[in-house]
Amino acid sequence: MTKEELVNQIRKKRSYLCIGLDTDIDKIPKHLLDLEDPIFEFNKAIIEATHDLCVAYKPNIAFYECMGAKGWDSLQKTVAHIPDGIFTIADAKRGDIGNSSKYYAQTFFETYDFDSVTLAPYMGRDSIDPFLSYNNKWAIILGVTSNESAADFQLSEVNKNGAGRPLYKEVIEKAKTWGTDQNTMFVTGATRPELLKEIREIVPHHFLLVPGVGSQGGDLTEVSEAGFNSECGLLVNSSRAILYAGNGEDFAEKAREAARGVQHQMDGLLSSSL
Amino acid sequence: MTKEELVNQIRKKRSYLCIGLDTDIDKIPKHLLDLEDPIFEFNKAIIEATHDLCVAYKPNIAFYECMGAKGWDSLQKTVAHIPDGIFTIADAKRGDIGNSSKYYAQTFFETYDFDSVTLAPYMGRDSIDPFLSYNNKWAIILGVTSNESAADFQLSEVNKNGAGRPLYKEVIEKAKTWGTDQNTMFVTGATRPELLKEIREIVPHHFLLVPGVGSQGGDLTEVSEAGFNSECGLLVNSSRAILYAGNGEDFAEKAREAARGVQHQMDGLLSSSL
Repeated sequence: MTKEELVNQIRKKRSYLCIGLDTDIDKIPKHLLDLEDPIFEFNKAIIEATHDLCVAYKPNIAFYECMGAKGWDSLQKTVAHIPDGIFTIADAKRGDIGNSSKYYAQTFFETYDFDSVTLAPYMGRDSIDPFLSYNNKWAIILGVTSNESAADFQLSEVNKNGAGRPLYKEVIEKAKTWGTDQNTMFVTGATRPELLKEIREIVPHHFLLVPGVGSQGGDLTEVSEAGFNSECGLLVNSSRAILYAGNGEDFAEKAREAARGVQHQMDGLLSSSL
Repeated sequence: MTKEELVNQIRKKRSYLCIGLDTDIDKIPKHLLDLEDPIFEFNKAIIEATHDLCVAYKPNIAFYECMGAKGWDSLQKTVAHIPDGIFTIADAKRGDIGNSSKYYAQTFFETYDFDSVTLAPYMGRDSIDPFLSYNNKWAIILGVTSNESAADFQLSEVNKNGAGRPLYKEVIEKAKTWGTDQNTMFVTGATRPELLKEIREIVPHHFLLVPGVGSQGGDLTEVSEAGFNSECGLLVNSSRAILYAGNGEDFAEKAREAARGVQHQMDGLLSSSL
């Protein structure tokens, strides 16, 4: 998907919501467990109930991978069930070099046909480049994450020409030169909205993927005001607050209500951006 | 596997060789391609030809993942075929937080029963802790890697109480306090042997996993002299130079000859350590 197509979807739906498909066999409604593929059946119902309210879905690969080959089948069926025009993110946080990196790109862009994949920057440019060689596919690089221990290294001060700046800024400054705002995004945790503003100064035109709103405590209004650019420029993710809004027979309706609530709020906030 | 058991294997086999199972469908001998599971058949032959010469096998997960669910089946059969007493490493370079991290640990330690998994440190302690809660399982954390662009961030100078030190040292200093030398190792690329010596000063008792000898240009003698401790303390990986030593019907014999060459050299080098 191109950046223009993504922005058009945001305009049309008045939403920059990404729904995280962190589908947990221990948390989905019990009545699904008798079906042949409960993970896919849950995702299918969630997608059918919410696809007009969001612009992206983000399956978290850990939840599928832990179920072995069966989990990868559920993932493949899920991706195939996401309607055209919705941006798909493999939240895989991969990062390797050489042929390994090339094969990770192949996994998510060819074997599973995702639009994008999240990537860890620790190994440097070698670990990102293979993902940037595909047309209309995206590398979403970890900048500053929403967890507490992001502070362990991401906020460490790195020397640069005598002055210091945090590692995550060094990462974004360097990585923005490897691709363009047409094939690279950055992960910016919602639990640190003050940093979103600083990141926006480094990458005014890039999309930012913002996890951490909802269960993790990030505030949508704060995040949006700090991160908007003239094309919206944000994908804000919510996972558990939508997926597990209900856990009875009506879980999909409850999920829809929760997503509708976020989309309404986004509609209001977007007035100042798009 | 415990550290003591690993050291005993090294003593017994006079080898600290880890064979990387970077099994590439485009590189394995053509006569295997007609079989139902060529990847597994190749690995099976390599394992049977080399298991007395090495102490560890390290499947690189990218090579399996890119083949979809079928690739994960090949991986599972491969792990099951590795004899007891050999240390197994899932070279996955995962790194996530919360439940995602917990599920990645479950994937490699329960679904696939590996002894260890390689992990990226960018997200901090949250991304490592779940792997340290298993008995006799290991987290192998990226320190300094063998690729050229490791310099992008790993060698960046981080401020610490007014003085500077490279990020990889900051990572190792912090991460060594999260676990112990009984459940944590660090990746230290063979292409930078001078750094191995410095890392050995920070973690005198930890095992180091050293990729990059052979095809990537690292030198076994240099690496060993810089990295040995009184229990050997090194697992030196070779992948392509062994796997693809031959590509005819006799590929497994050729692989054995290549592995035997490395093991001979290791036997000589070990005299000064064990």
